[in-house]
Amino acid sequence: MSGENNIQIGLLGLGTVGRGVYRIITGNAENIKRKVGAGLEVKKILEKDTAKLRDLEIDLSKQTTNIEDIINDPEIKIVVEVLGGIKPTLDYVSRALENGQSVVTANKDMIATHGKQLFALSQANHADLLFEASVGGGIPIISTLKQCLAANRITQIIGIVNGTTNYMLTKMTEEGSDFTEVLQEAQAKGYAEADPTADIEGYDAARKLAILASIAFNSRVVLDDVYVEGITKITASDIAYAGELNYIIKLLAIAKETGDGIEVRVHPTLIPYNHPLATVNDVYNAIYVTGDAVGDTMFYGRGAGEMPTASAVVSNVMDAARNLLHEVPGIISCTCYEEKPVKDMGATQVKYYVRLNVTDKPGVLASIACAFGDKEVSLASVLQKQTDGNNAEIVLVTHKVREKNMQEALEIIKHLSSVNEVANFIRVEGE
Amino acid sequence: MSGENNIQIGLLGLGTVGRGVYRIITGNAENIKRKVGAGLEVKKILEKDTAKLRDLEIDLSKQTTNIEDIINDPEIKIVVEVLGGIKPTLDYVSRALENGQSVVTANKDMIATHGKQLFALSQANHADLLFEASVGGGIPIISTLKQCLAANRITQIIGIVNGTTNYMLTKMTEEGSDFTEVLQEAQAKGYAEADPTADIEGYDAARKLAILASIAFNSRVVLDDVYVEGITKITASDIAYAGELNYIIKLLAIAKETGDGIEVRVHPTLIPYNHPLATVNDVYNAIYVTGDAVGDTMFYGRGAGEMPTASAVVSNVMDAARNLLHEVPGIISCTCYEEKPVKDMGATQVKYYVRLNVTDKPGVLASIACAFGDKEVSLASVLQKQTDGNNAEIVLVTHKVREKNMQEALEIIKHLSSVNEVANFIRVEGE
Repeated sequence: MSGENNIQIGLLGLGTVGRGVYRIITGNAENIKRKVGAGLEVKKILEKDTAKLRDLEIDLSKQTTNIEDIINDPEIKIVVEVLGGIKPTLDYVSRALENGQSVVTANKDMIATHGKQLFALSQANHADLLFEASVGGGIPIISTLKQCLAANRITQIIGIVNGTTNYMLTKMTEEGSDFTEVLQEAQAKGYAEADPTADIEGYDAARKLAILASIAFNSRVVLDDVYVEGITKITASDIAYAGELNYIIKLLAIAKETGDGIEVRVHPTLIPYNHPLATVNDVYNAIYVTGDAVGDTMFYGRGAGEMPTASAVVSNVMDAARNLLHEVPGIISCTCYEEKPVKDMGATQVKYYVRLNVTDKPGVLASIACAFGDKEVSLASVLQKQTDGNNAEIVLVTHKVREKNMQEALEIIKHLSSVNEVANFIRVEGE
Repeated sequence: MSGENNIQIGLLGLGTVGRGVYRIITGNAENIKRKVGAGLEVKKILEKDTAKLRDLEIDLSKQTTNIEDIINDPEIKIVVEVLGGIKPTLDYVSRALENGQSVVTANKDMIATHGKQLFALSQANHADLLFEASVGGGIPIISTLKQCLAANRITQIIGIVNGTTNYMLTKMTEEGSDFTEVLQEAQAKGYAEADPTADIEGYDAARKLAILASIAFNSRVVLDDVYVEGITKITASDIAYAGELNYIIKLLAIAKETGDGIEVRVHPTLIPYNHPLATVNDVYNAIYVTGDAVGDTMFYGRGAGEMPTASAVVSNVMDAARNLLHEVPGIISCTCYEEKPVKDMGATQVKYYVRLNVTDKPGVLASIACAFGDKEVSLASVLQKQTDGNNAEIVLVTHKVREKNMQEALEIIKHLSSVNEVANFIRVEGE
């Protein structure tokens, strides 16, 4: 395997993705060499757990627990970071870039939060910093936005970028089951973590959206800019009502460039049942991108897992290796050359689905409609269902309205004497 | 617009796509410059029709009818070929490459037939030859296969790559209308040409498949290697029966790497109604790609049209320009470094849908089943429908079987006394 002309790699971490990376680099070595023009060789692996190396029959001389053995080895030209987390990873990656090593990372937390400083380091040191695997697992969306759709002004991205919640919502839709039940099932299957907060509260999707929006709109968007709402309030009855109205509920990561700023928001969303994203089920991800020239496009695939994520990492390593061979690392640089304002959530204009529990007596619908009307919320459709002798459920979908007006209307409606509860309200997109 | 550091472009043809290319290069100039690191400027346009330049308010000094003004101008670094056809285009492109000019082309005919010699020229002269727009219009599938999925061994590509026939089959499915009727409608709308042969007989899809398969399998596949069957024999009743069996009929371009050679074939195909390709409707295209690491992925968008195609062309021009600036044109080279055999169609193993017109008398199904059995064709499902007093229609779906056996069985069945006609047989994929 060793060869003088091989490009030497330092691998940080031999967890799930690191294992996949090692397997592809060794298992597909000949094709990689033909495509790149030189072989790839993992010289050192930062990993405490010797069993993980033994498991892949890796020579233990490659193991190290000292990061200096990688970032201070001038023979190592590419550092592959699949450790995750910010500490100490950010420090490792920064120092590798400062030493002129190209870096390939799958770390969405780090890129979404510290991207700006890392890209500055990459540019100053003429080193590649590639991060395809940070969004959408094996789906090539970063390169697509940076190169393949580069001629476009991207106007909108709507993504299903979290496999855990998509699996859960798919199950809830197919089986009519409730949130808690499905979460337990997802945890049992290993699709959801013991602490599922990052997934079900939307933070994982929000990090990925910050990365996508930064590239699409050429303006740095960070995690804190993103409005985030998870799926914990979605009930089986919301999904059933949505179905009656020909909608599917998905957790969507939405970025739009509007005349008055960038919208970046993650929230459960009703989309029409015939929208291309509506049939993206289970742990699959898909990113729906609209450009001024290309129109509507969609990129679909597995958003996580050992081999899909490793596919993206190793493809990036091959690009970095080719750039090193041709002495042009950093040829595709950061493109956040503008500073666009991020719009306040209150100024967003969307449609809403609202579910209300009311006391079933004359005039209740009139009082609700009146409150909406006062705030310029106009209604597109209304369903009313008796739930028991005294109570009814009213489900309505509005026309497009400013979020601020909607919130004000709901505040009034909440206090109407005949309204027991504003049971849920969910935004509607894709029409 | 003019500037010393701009990269000069020669545009061959100001037809539909050429017009889109010019509009993007001028309309999105500032963003392009920021992303590439230099501006792009169209210096000369090979176009006889002055009205086309006037229509876009292009200075007539840019017009030429002499190809030498472009390929012999050392200031012109990138030649954009959107003329189409082989003669004289192949000569123009060859000479541009020989002169070291980078070439961006949307010409699937030329690449599918003469790719080998052109890539050799590109490599010998260190010039880029980029052709993203030749397949899938605005969908970035060439770059995806060459770079983003480079770490994978691609095992299969299934594409809807012809918008005209997909529009027609969608209409037939939605409206129950027949082929001739829908063709006339497609021609009236401008979706089908006056001579629709290339589309409806599958040749357009076959050219695109040759290009995709060459990249996916690292082995040159040319048009003549592809088995081609169009959609002219598909009837409203086939579509209805397919629907009853939970299938949709699509014209698919299929490439598979099997243990004993490459399969490349274009034919109408039944796919399960819940396959991701089944909901790709109207003029949209999609390419479903399976890799050993990434698993199943799909890339969806508009497969034709002025602006989508121009999006792919200009994104390629931006890559070529960046490569020129960094003095690495040709950095992504041709990857047909293997020579894999193309499998004989008779050796292909698929499932089949068969529709038979029979005389409705005892023993007819037994004689048919017997003939299939003799040729080792086993049946997965059978539908029998009375059509009038004496005749019936039998629709059956087989298990996987070698094409050769299937053809032999059908030859015998055709001559059974109770069989009036083998009305249709269509291959089944995606299960």
